[in-house]
Amino acid sequence: MIFKRGLYVGRFQPFHKGHLEAIRWILSQVEELIIVIGSAQYSHDLENPFKAGERFTMIRRALDEAQIPRGRYEIIAVPDLHVHALWVAHVISYTPKFEVVFTNEPLTRRLFLEYGRFAVRQIPFFKRDIYSATEIRRRILQGEDWEKLVPISVAEYIKEIDGVGRIQDLVKSDKPSL
Amino acid sequence: MIFKRGLYVGRFQPFHKGHLEAIRWILSQVEELIIVIGSAQYSHDLENPFKAGERFTMIRRALDEAQIPRGRYEIIAVPDLHVHALWVAHVISYTPKFEVVFTNEPLTRRLFLEYGRFAVRQIPFFKRDIYSATEIRRRILQGEDWEKLVPISVAEYIKEIDGVGRIQDLVKSDKPSL
Amino acid sequence: MIFKRGLYVGRFQPFHKGHLEAIRWILSQVEELIIVIGSAQYSHDLENPFKAGERFTMIRRALDEAQIPRGRYEIIAVPDLHVHALWVAHVISYTPKFEVVFTNEPLTRRLFLEYGRFAVRQIPFFKRDIYSATEIRRRILQGEDWEKLVPISVAEYIKEIDGVGRIQDLVKSDKPSL
Amino acid sequence: MIFKRGLYVGRFQPFHKGHLEAIRWILSQVEELIIVIGSAQYSHDLENPFKAGERFTMIRRALDEAQIPRGRYEIIAVPDLHVHALWVAHVISYTPKFEVVFTNEPLTRRLFLEYGRFAVRQIPFFKRDIYSATEIRRRILQGEDWEKLVPISVAEYIKEIDGVGRIQDLVKSDKPSL
Amino acid sequence: MIFKRGLYVGRFQPFHKGHLEAIRWILSQVEELIIVIGSAQYSHDLENPFKAGERFTMIRRALDEAQIPRGRYEIIAVPDLHVHALWVAHVISYTPKFEVVFTNEPLTRRLFLEYGRFAVRQIPFFKRDIYSATEIRRRILQGEDWEKLVPISVAEYIKEIDGVGRIQDLVKSDKPSL
Amino acid sequence: MIFKRGLYVGRFQPFHKGHLEAIRWILSQVEELIIVIGSAQYSHDLENPFKAGERFTMIRRALDEAQIPRGRYEIIAVPDLHVHALWVAHVISYTPKFEVVFTNEPLTRRLFLEYGRFAVRQIPFFKRDIYSATEIRRRILQGEDWEKLVPISVAEYIKEIDGVGRIQDLVKSDKPSL
Repeated sequence: MIFKRGLYVGRFQPFHKGHLEAIRWILSQVEELIIVIGSAQYSHDLENPFKAGERFTMIRRALDEAQIPRGRYEIIAVPDLHVHALWVAHVISYTPKFEVVFTNEPLTRRLFLEYGRFAVRQIPFFKRDIYSATEIRRRILQGEDWEKLVPISVAEYIKEIDGVGRIQDLVKSDKPSL
Repeated sequence: MIFKRGLYVGRFQPFHKGHLEAIRWILSQVEELIIVIGSAQYSHDLENPFKAGERFTMIRRALDEAQIPRGRYEIIAVPDLHVHALWVAHVISYTPKFEVVFTNEPLTRRLFLEYGRFAVRQIPFFKRDIYSATEIRRRILQGEDWEKLVPISVAEYIKEIDGVGRIQDLVKSDKPSL
Repeated sequence: MIFKRGLYVGRFQPFHKGHLEAIRWILSQVEELIIVIGSAQYSHDLENPFKAGERFTMIRRALDEAQIPRGRYEIIAVPDLHVHALWVAHVISYTPKFEVVFTNEPLTRRLFLEYGRFAVRQIPFFKRDIYSATEIRRRILQGEDWEKLVPISVAEYIKEIDGVGRIQDLVKSDKPSL
Repeated sequence: MIFKRGLYVGRFQPFHKGHLEAIRWILSQVEELIIVIGSAQYSHDLENPFKAGERFTMIRRALDEAQIPRGRYEIIAVPDLHVHALWVAHVISYTPKFEVVFTNEPLTRRLFLEYGRFAVRQIPFFKRDIYSATEIRRRILQGEDWEKLVPISVAEYIKEIDGVGRIQDLVKSDKPSL
Repeated sequence: MIFKRGLYVGRFQPFHKGHLEAIRWILSQVEELIIVIGSAQYSHDLENPFKAGERFTMIRRALDEAQIPRGRYEIIAVPDLHVHALWVAHVISYTPKFEVVFTNEPLTRRLFLEYGRFAVRQIPFFKRDIYSATEIRRRILQGEDWEKLVPISVAEYIKEIDGVGRIQDLVKSDKPSL
Repeated sequence: MIFKRGLYVGRFQPFHKGHLEAIRWILSQVEELIIVIGSAQYSHDLENPFKAGERFTMIRRALDEAQIPRGRYEIIAVPDLHVHALWVAHVISYTPKFEVVFTNEPLTRRLFLEYGRFAVRQIPFFKRDIYSATEIRRRILQGEDWEKLVPISVAEYIKEIDGVGRIQDLVKSDKPSL
């Protein structure tokens, strides 16, 4: 293995096959992976329909379904502070020690590089145009086929908690979110 | 009466005749109504020009003008938390006990239903296109006639506190609001 | 009347006969009184056992029992900010306009005087040693007679919501409050 | 099994053998356990010396050492809000679905019972006077033997991150914590 | 001098020649100027790329370069509260005593006038279309010439901290800012 | 000089001769000093009687009185976050670049050392038992002689803003501070 422990951050609204492929690839680079669920406190808005506990459940079920051993990764939810200058220190405080960050997000990359103690690596994209949480939420809203973009266990879970109804209610709402 | 105590949530920016008609209708369904002033901490932005205390004053004057007895309702201001998963528990903590929520807002409806202890009912709309706070703020901004959309006492109060000047200043501002 | 509208701030944990006598006296000085429920967000700790909505209910029932007309006063809950330099502006934003503050609390008095726009007046004390929320909570904890220190409707309400059991649980807790 | 999924909340400052025995016992009652690390944002004060990520690491190492299968439990860190009336809704939002709460803490018990959707159960104590995080922090401070009160892997980890030095610095500090 | 001490508020993202000319002009009206760096906690987003400490450094270097004596002004960073009703009290609490506010921002003007203790004055504009922080950030993003719009020392400092690379990363980011 | 830029953190409630001697000594070690006013948002409680702006004024007047050139130091107020794990990143975001921290506070020392990018140095104490803000507040409360423990300009300023009356009011208050 190239690294002992790596970090991967997402909002997972919802967890999809692109996330799964990214995790598989990262696990070829590190002994252990910390999956951070960002914006943990938000739910019930169009960008963030699912609660942290619901996203935790999705990820666990999807990785069990993919037969990724539980000993290879941790899942940790971290709330937003909305202060970028504190974000790296905040993530560090919630997580076991890690040496490398896997991200394609330019600000995440820059914040970790400016902090100065971590390696930062890109992740190969997997059909980025369709394996996208934004695209999945759009399809759910418009009644298009979204289920094949997520692992089977995630599609089932979203239906189990009426995630489709929730997203369709959210688009009709004018309640101010964040 | 169908219910003992009901809840009705709005931002009341400003309180208008549509709100008044909704309250009259709800009072035919409940013995007592709790009127929640949402987003209580905000003021001086285009979506939220008036302070909670100003909105409290508008509602009290309008309901006195409409000769609705004070024993039939309470007015309670509640600040936003911006965390939807906590919102129902937050509203409960600020209010006397209630059994039913009157709302046409899909997210409010969903949050109370997911919480699972309350009845939720729709409210008949009253000329929804013009009895709208957004429309009233637009008319104030553009110098069109807005006064007939609000109770007389509310129109007088808005002029008394220079609400028109305030809204016209706000549109010229680039100060970041929430 | 000496003043048009006055302000009186308390935590009302719980509302007792000393509060009631203070309100009667203030109502001899002002046309209308704003009763502010401070520290509105706190509950379930030994200093603040009751929620804002529960305290609202106590005050309303006690003043109805005392036959004080609803047109003479308003009840408004205001959460703590924990920043004293902002406190007066914060209270102003939640309340209708007032000119005078009634308080025996030296910091409340000083903050309003430093702000510089309000008259501040003392309130005569009524058996201060026993009509005290601290004394009432102590008696509840130790199983002594507390009911005669509060209006009948408040004693009934506290029993209705199992306030005695709640306070007795709180003393056994080591969960960190504020 | 009596229950499908249970919840157990602690601050784990640090994780000790009493926690381990409690977890073993709870795992005889539930198929799966959610271990909540409370007060997640705090560290570096005498009551809360360790960061959430450090406490996560302690728990994982201790349960691996005890050969408790990873499939039997989840570890989830939850920050304090300091508003007890919101605490149950807040915990729910961070966690997978559960039906029962295991706690000896009277306020935790009361808050879940007032919320009204969960069973609440006591946990048998295991040498409560010495298997106590307060006692362990006291022993660390005074240079007494503390290591036998925690699992071997936790003692090693505390030494690895200089937890002893940290606690001894904290007692000399007058920097205000929470 | 017309006034003893004046206040001037900006976000200074970045500090430019328009700010410098405004300060020169204000210094012809007051003995001493307090320069408030607003939105102090924000950085690393497109509207607020620079940290408060970086903006402090820019202002100090630019005013030293312009040979404005340090005894004529103070620089004070103030974080946003996002509650406009508290903003004036918040600024007052962070600053030495002042009597006049210099601003062309209608909301800033209104908030200070509603507070009621300060004179408020307009500032003559200096080539407002190009001496604008928004225009400078746009030019940096698009690789156009921006350096001549800021003092030499500011241009050097922005390059020293890789401000150009930072802004170009931010535009590619979809990480939620405030 | 040994270092280019150093940091010195205090609450300065109030600024006293011990602080002045510490600053003189640090200025023999660094070209430029950043003086951080901590807990900036707090005032009007017994531990923190003075507002950030008042403390800024005290420090400026005292250092002018001591003829320390303004080019040798900066004064920067930083609010508390109450999350120690974020504190170093928070201070960094508000301040110009520095390489060394001067402190006798064990937690400050530890937090900067754990962060890992700064030198940390002790400061010689100057009559620590009497040059102490706690001792000065105690003397003010009890009407003992406190003025000789602070620079002349600070004693005058405290009297100018009625700091003595404020502290004496605070001790009589039972209003909850932080």
